[in-house]
Amino acid sequence: MKLNCDMGESFGAWTMGKDAEVMPCIDMASIACGFHASDPVIMRNTVALAREHGVSIGAHPSYPDLLGFGRRKFDCTDEELYAWLGYQLGALKGICRQQCAIVDYVKPHGALYNTMMKDMKVLRTVMRAVKDTAPGCPLVVMAIPHRDTINNLAEEIGIELLFEAFSDRAYDDEGFLVDRRIDGAVHGSAEAILRQVQQITEQGTVTTLSGKTLKVDADTLCIHGDGPHASAVAQALGLWRANGKN
Amino acid sequence: MKLNCDMGESFGAWTMGKDAEVMPCIDMASIACGFHASDPVIMRNTVALAREHGVSIGAHPSYPDLLGFGRRKFDCTDEELYAWLGYQLGALKGICRQQCAIVDYVKPHGALYNTMMKDMKVLRTVMRAVKDTAPGCPLVVMAIPHRDTINNLAEEIGIELLFEAFSDRAYDDEGFLVDRRIDGAVHGSAEAILRQVQQITEQGTVTTLSGKTLKVDADTLCIHGDGPHASAVAQALGLWRANGKN
Amino acid sequence: MKLNCDMGESFGAWTMGKDAEVMPCIDMASIACGFHASDPVIMRNTVALAREHGVSIGAHPSYPDLLGFGRRKFDCTDEELYAWLGYQLGALKGICRQQCAIVDYVKPHGALYNTMMKDMKVLRTVMRAVKDTAPGCPLVVMAIPHRDTINNLAEEIGIELLFEAFSDRAYDDEGFLVDRRIDGAVHGSAEAILRQVQQITEQGTVTTLSGKTLKVDADTLCIHGDGPHASAVAQALGLWRANGKN
Amino acid sequence: MKLNCDMGESFGAWTMGKDAEVMPCIDMASIACGFHASDPVIMRNTVALAREHGVSIGAHPSYPDLLGFGRRKFDCTDEELYAWLGYQLGALKGICRQQCAIVDYVKPHGALYNTMMKDMKVLRTVMRAVKDTAPGCPLVVMAIPHRDTINNLAEEIGIELLFEAFSDRAYDDEGFLVDRRIDGAVHGSAEAILRQVQQITEQGTVTTLSGKTLKVDADTLCIHGDGPHASAVAQALGLWRANGKN
Repeated sequence: MKLNCDMGESFGAWTMGKDAEVMPCIDMASIACGFHASDPVIMRNTVALAREHGVSIGAHPSYPDLLGFGRRKFDCTDEELYAWLGYQLGALKGICRQQCAIVDYVKPHGALYNTMMKDMKVLRTVMRAVKDTAPGCPLVVMAIPHRDTINNLAEEIGIELLFEAFSDRAYDDEGFLVDRRIDGAVHGSAEAILRQVQQITEQGTVTTLSGKTLKVDADTLCIHGDGPHASAVAQALGLWRANGKN
Repeated sequence: MKLNCDMGESFGAWTMGKDAEVMPCIDMASIACGFHASDPVIMRNTVALAREHGVSIGAHPSYPDLLGFGRRKFDCTDEELYAWLGYQLGALKGICRQQCAIVDYVKPHGALYNTMMKDMKVLRTVMRAVKDTAPGCPLVVMAIPHRDTINNLAEEIGIELLFEAFSDRAYDDEGFLVDRRIDGAVHGSAEAILRQVQQITEQGTVTTLSGKTLKVDADTLCIHGDGPHASAVAQALGLWRANGKN
Repeated sequence: MKLNCDMGESFGAWTMGKDAEVMPCIDMASIACGFHASDPVIMRNTVALAREHGVSIGAHPSYPDLLGFGRRKFDCTDEELYAWLGYQLGALKGICRQQCAIVDYVKPHGALYNTMMKDMKVLRTVMRAVKDTAPGCPLVVMAIPHRDTINNLAEEIGIELLFEAFSDRAYDDEGFLVDRRIDGAVHGSAEAILRQVQQITEQGTVTTLSGKTLKVDADTLCIHGDGPHASAVAQALGLWRANGKN
Repeated sequence: MKLNCDMGESFGAWTMGKDAEVMPCIDMASIACGFHASDPVIMRNTVALAREHGVSIGAHPSYPDLLGFGRRKFDCTDEELYAWLGYQLGALKGICRQQCAIVDYVKPHGALYNTMMKDMKVLRTVMRAVKDTAPGCPLVVMAIPHRDTINNLAEEIGIELLFEAFSDRAYDDEGFLVDRRIDGAVHGSAEAILRQVQQITEQGTVTTLSGKTLKVDADTLCIHGDGPHASAVAQALGLWRANGKN
């Protein structure tokens, strides 16, 4: 199971995340494309950092919402979303091309990610855009328990999927992420993160916010490199490596 | 000599230019990339329109200046400019890829265009960015009389050039465009435009704002599709075609 | 009944609306505040134009959505909306102050207008923001048939209301505007606009898209100054004036 | 001599500065107005924080340059600058009004600040805008040695000035700030900052980057609340208070 982390989420003079510290520890860097975070210079530096550490480069596209960091639900048409994705994937590919680097996968960000997991019309548009703009790139989706619909759609469109589990976010009983605005949505302690990582890796399950146990069969685990739990994340990584799981 | 025109310079709900009317008349469409004008949906529609009429697609990148329409001089580093160009060229390529279209050339916009013609450090950065992001694409530059420096630079970087003349803009005595803020910078009548096109095509010269005659040896002629001279432009086109010059 | 019109909805190099032609014909100019359209220079010119013609100046604030022209539903908290309104109303007041002009009323734009008419929590936030940022200014709301809730809220907050009818938009059976994405939402002919204006002024009713007749008791009538129906609008104005209704 | 500090320079999800820690130590909070940093919610929270600690509120307007944090030289007309300032001062006044707070002074940011100190045409525009939008508010300018021109201009326009010294920036021999891109422009150690503060307060002079001693007669001292020298700043504050200078 590979470790992925959101990267390049600074903007202009503002810094977010400890990219230089985290990059050596991860396998996949999901790089913001300028719609919820990042700018061309930051994208360029982040691609260079990923290459330096032999980390896979993923596009991390979003709704166009810099002020809301892409976490706001966004009212748009399929045509808009399809074009926004083509623009962002192309932009990151342009930055990569300048360094002879390659975009390896696509993982939508924030509200777009959550929406596509629940609205199959949106997911279809995302899949089509990835297929048409970055052919051959797999799409990262949540490792929800019931995947038949998603798998069928991916097969129909002709796109590969990577299923993802989360280290520091609470799950609801359907296997989706709990809304950030709800108490307990983001794990508030290093212990809680570590416990969830351990459970996912050793038992292939998570315990939901309400106490239910859900099966989580994942290809990749998402960690976050900012906030007060850098150390928890590091410990989690140690655990991973020691367990020889990645 | 091919006709090129700035295209896709609308933004969101705002329309600029008569793209649908002009596209059938031109050979090369220089499509804005979202930094001075356009957005992903407009780029997509403009690429579709160009393909429909068999028109070459060029990237029309700019400084990041939506409010100033990219006409404002912009204080930036080479690193910033290089990354901004990688981002924009990549973005248009992404939109093109969704329609199996190709970016054929690059023509910088507005202040960036004027700056690169006078500052060889900026021109070098533009050439490197085009070479690295859109290898094989020629760069459109002004058909100034003294080209040795520019030609040498292009040879050194390894990039092809297309030299461009302007139908509706006044020239200064060095063969550069007269600043838009100066009276007479933009030809105010259909006659003036027609006269300049005729002179360029038949005699290979322009008459500068001060009355001097300059040699202008161009591969492509820039027209504009908005404003009150749509008909002048159309007449100019008729003249072209009749003369069998393109 | 006073005529109001959205004004100052250009942006940077892009023009929208025929402000100079329409301004002499109206009583109230609702001026965009930079969130869905306009910029400080355009706001300044629009305020100057309104003063020249003795037209009342209204703030026309919006969700922060330049790309979507403020027509997109927007997911935000009350705290965000309250601050966004304070910022926009203040900004227009600042521009007005430079010309010794005054903001006379507030009319929210697009999606914000439609949302506040249906969601009393949003309307309460809008009323509070207007009360606290522009004390004494009335708020323009739709002249819907059932107004008790809205009137009570206004009384509770302590704010005056102006009820508004629309000349060129179709009504649904509850007296709200038909969504722009639905066929027939915007009247497509001069005749349809004229007919609706006449019906509103002479009979105090509108005919809804489904054919029902609704009572519309309005203080002000909204016209639009862009689009192909400038002449229809002009005729409507003539009708108004002739009837001595304003 | 009063302590002033740039405040409210976060944006959306990005944090800059330790506003909550610094606010209790200062006398004047220069609050960003959304053009180089901040957004309406952050402005609102920063105004609330200033009020809580009885700190004066200043507007900290900038060129419209979020990507470059207002540090980029900006090519604009007087008319644009005048309107941009009216917009920003008004916007902060709107946010203040919602909390019954008042804007007490104006201090331009970054490149605008540096430009107005060297270009009297720009300074005149700034003074006019402050006078017309926020009558009665003093303008903060650099405490340069030769002030006759500036004082005369202020008198002509009818605006009060506050002269400012800098704790953590190197001076050139004319008494201006050394460009940030030059080595040594920003003091890299707590000691250097402390030393400069002490010299300014005790001797009324600074030592320039080249070693010259310049007279600095200031009403207010600018400190910065972000970066690694928070403690140096705190010590400087202690020094101030102990010396009974503010």
